[in-house]
Amino acid sequence: MTIASPLAQINTPAAVIDMARMDANIDRMQARVNALGVRFRPHVKTSKCVDVVRRQLKAGAAGITVSTLKEAEQFFASGMSDIFYAVGMAPHKLPQAAALLRAGCGLRILVDNVAAAQAIAAYAVAHDVAFAVLIEIDTDGHRSGVKPEAPDLIDIARALTADPRVTLTGVMTHAGASYDFHDAASLQRIAEQERVLCVRAATRLREAGFACLEVSVGSTPTALSARSLDGVTEVRAGVYVFFDLVMANVGVCDLGDIAMSVLTTVIGHQREKNWAIVDAGWMAMSRDRGTQKQPIDYGYGQVCDVAGQPIAGCTVASANQEHGIVEWRDAGLGQSIEARFPVGMQLRILPNHACATAAQFPTYEALGDDGVVSTWPRFYGW
Amino acid sequence: MTIASPLAQINTPAAVIDMARMDANIDRMQARVNALGVRFRPHVKTSKCVDVVRRQLKAGAAGITVSTLKEAEQFFASGMSDIFYAVGMAPHKLPQAAALLRAGCGLRILVDNVAAAQAIAAYAVAHDVAFAVLIEIDTDGHRSGVKPEAPDLIDIARALTADPRVTLTGVMTHAGASYDFHDAASLQRIAEQERVLCVRAATRLREAGFACLEVSVGSTPTALSARSLDGVTEVRAGVYVFFDLVMANVGVCDLGDIAMSVLTTVIGHQREKNWAIVDAGWMAMSRDRGTQKQPIDYGYGQVCDVAGQPIAGCTVASANQEHGIVEWRDAGLGQSIEARFPVGMQLRILPNHACATAAQFPTYEALGDDGVVSTWPRFYGW
Repeated sequence: MTIASPLAQINTPAAVIDMARMDANIDRMQARVNALGVRFRPHVKTSKCVDVVRRQLKAGAAGITVSTLKEAEQFFASGMSDIFYAVGMAPHKLPQAAALLRAGCGLRILVDNVAAAQAIAAYAVAHDVAFAVLIEIDTDGHRSGVKPEAPDLIDIARALTADPRVTLTGVMTHAGASYDFHDAASLQRIAEQERVLCVRAATRLREAGFACLEVSVGSTPTALSARSLDGVTEVRAGVYVFFDLVMANVGVCDLGDIAMSVLTTVIGHQREKNWAIVDAGWMAMSRDRGTQKQPIDYGYGQVCDVAGQPIAGCTVASANQEHGIVEWRDAGLGQSIEARFPVGMQLRILPNHACATAAQFPTYEALGDDGVVSTWPRFYGW
Repeated sequence: MTIASPLAQINTPAAVIDMARMDANIDRMQARVNALGVRFRPHVKTSKCVDVVRRQLKAGAAGITVSTLKEAEQFFASGMSDIFYAVGMAPHKLPQAAALLRAGCGLRILVDNVAAAQAIAAYAVAHDVAFAVLIEIDTDGHRSGVKPEAPDLIDIARALTADPRVTLTGVMTHAGASYDFHDAASLQRIAEQERVLCVRAATRLREAGFACLEVSVGSTPTALSARSLDGVTEVRAGVYVFFDLVMANVGVCDLGDIAMSVLTTVIGHQREKNWAIVDAGWMAMSRDRGTQKQPIDYGYGQVCDVAGQPIAGCTVASANQEHGIVEWRDAGLGQSIEARFPVGMQLRILPNHACATAAQFPTYEALGDDGVVSTWPRFYGW
């Protein structure tokens, strides 16, 4: 007797959360950061979902990290007020930040250059608003931030604190280059580099006379690889809540930890190519091809059965907007592609990059161990 | 004196439509299809915006093509009723299609296999609902569809028309392989192949006794390259409404035709790398790297000034979720990256793939020649 999947009635494509896996991911990260003796401030850009973030806070997170002021507004409206906006402040967004502060949000903002620091200080004076600001430190050359030894570091601190309304709250860094590694020793090295260089920046600021209380570091790979966080006060990480195929390639999770998948339906075949066509194209999976240059290239995703078990040799090899092409490389065992994946069959696809895939969906279908599916809203845009 | 840009007050990142360019694109395609003597049914998956589609209909389009039933529902709710859902029907979506039909929507659906055809016929009988169905023809091997010479073609027609409630309305094809070419001769060849093979399928069906009124072909490159559409009744195309860098590489538009761009703001620099950091990351641009294997690789997009003029040697070389890294390869003329692109400066980024980039935004900012900016909603999800 076949027991109907609790997902059988869900329209496809849909973003399904395996709640047991997600809760395990949340507990694993929180326990790890607790053991290292620092606070944990999850990056909520991955889920953009209040229901998910409440579970992270309940597990022990101290505040949240956001990537847009819209996220800050949405989570503040849900009762969360300890919020760090971890993208360099654009001067024209200061009124939006000030409105949050005036409404009682404990918003922290970020800067990595003198011009923006001057704009923040000038706005604070002109509008009599107090800003808590961190300086972004570049510890791996992958993106933004000021180098820990750069003269600019002290200049930024001076520009910020020209008026007492602005507090230099601390320094932060994100070693995004950690995504490029896939062995434990390299990950430990980049985690240690992230720590040492960020602490060094804090030390320079303190030596120059600035109180620099917060030393905030993190990425999912470094948070899970750091052996010591001496001198660090908080860790940030985002994608760990769902994990994904990129993180599996990095080596910080297994396929069985990936908590978000795209539910899809078989709509046709190309018999002679051993293709099944599914209704999850790149609009559902996103165009993220993050595993392309990693040890295992999963195409647009790893195909699983509807229960979430990976099917060997079966990936979404290519995608159009609303068509996914499922390639079955282990074909030829006497079963046709149509028999193996009949029209109407549901499958689940593990994504390359959970942040990108989740962003394509207005809701999650959160599947509990009890088989109950709850629909959780998420938001997008700026 | 500097005249303020009409976009100066727009929060970034934002999806800006240059209305004059869009209207020219709409007129160009409509005039071309008119000249070839067939009807034009634009694919509205690109914009998912009623304000855009109304302009396409006003210019002469006959009905619309959609990629999801949500698009069908949204556009039907806006008063459009001649709608072709051009993705192979999944059996579990038949109730949703039937609800549209019962509400008065002139919905056409698509099928490319016997199993789905049987499901449609069975549903029509069980629920006493009439379906108008096209059969998808594979004319270039790039995705779904049945080959024009395949025995399945006739079997699908028989399965569909087992009950008189189902009408075999015609055949359709989409030569998506046309995106892989970039010279006029190849594009004309693939357009002719699309036409000939789709007409051939219609002929086979007619010879087998099926009325097959509609012969629907198209893609933006083939629609703009076809020399003859003999035997064709309608053309479909989508991305032409905005065009994009992929289409510029294919050779069917110029950079100056691209009507949608992402407005962004400079938030920082990496001086020694000649990088400017902007607030349009991959969440704004999408992860689409469609120009990666084309003659010109634009990274995550071509950088333009706020007036929309491309800046030579300046692309978004890489991207994080909310950070775009603008590389200025023509640097070194005595001007620093900070002087050329100061913090707070607005730029506009032409996207690789308009369908993917537009999907990241809840609204468009439509900029008229008069400098007036209108906010147009768009939708997403399924």
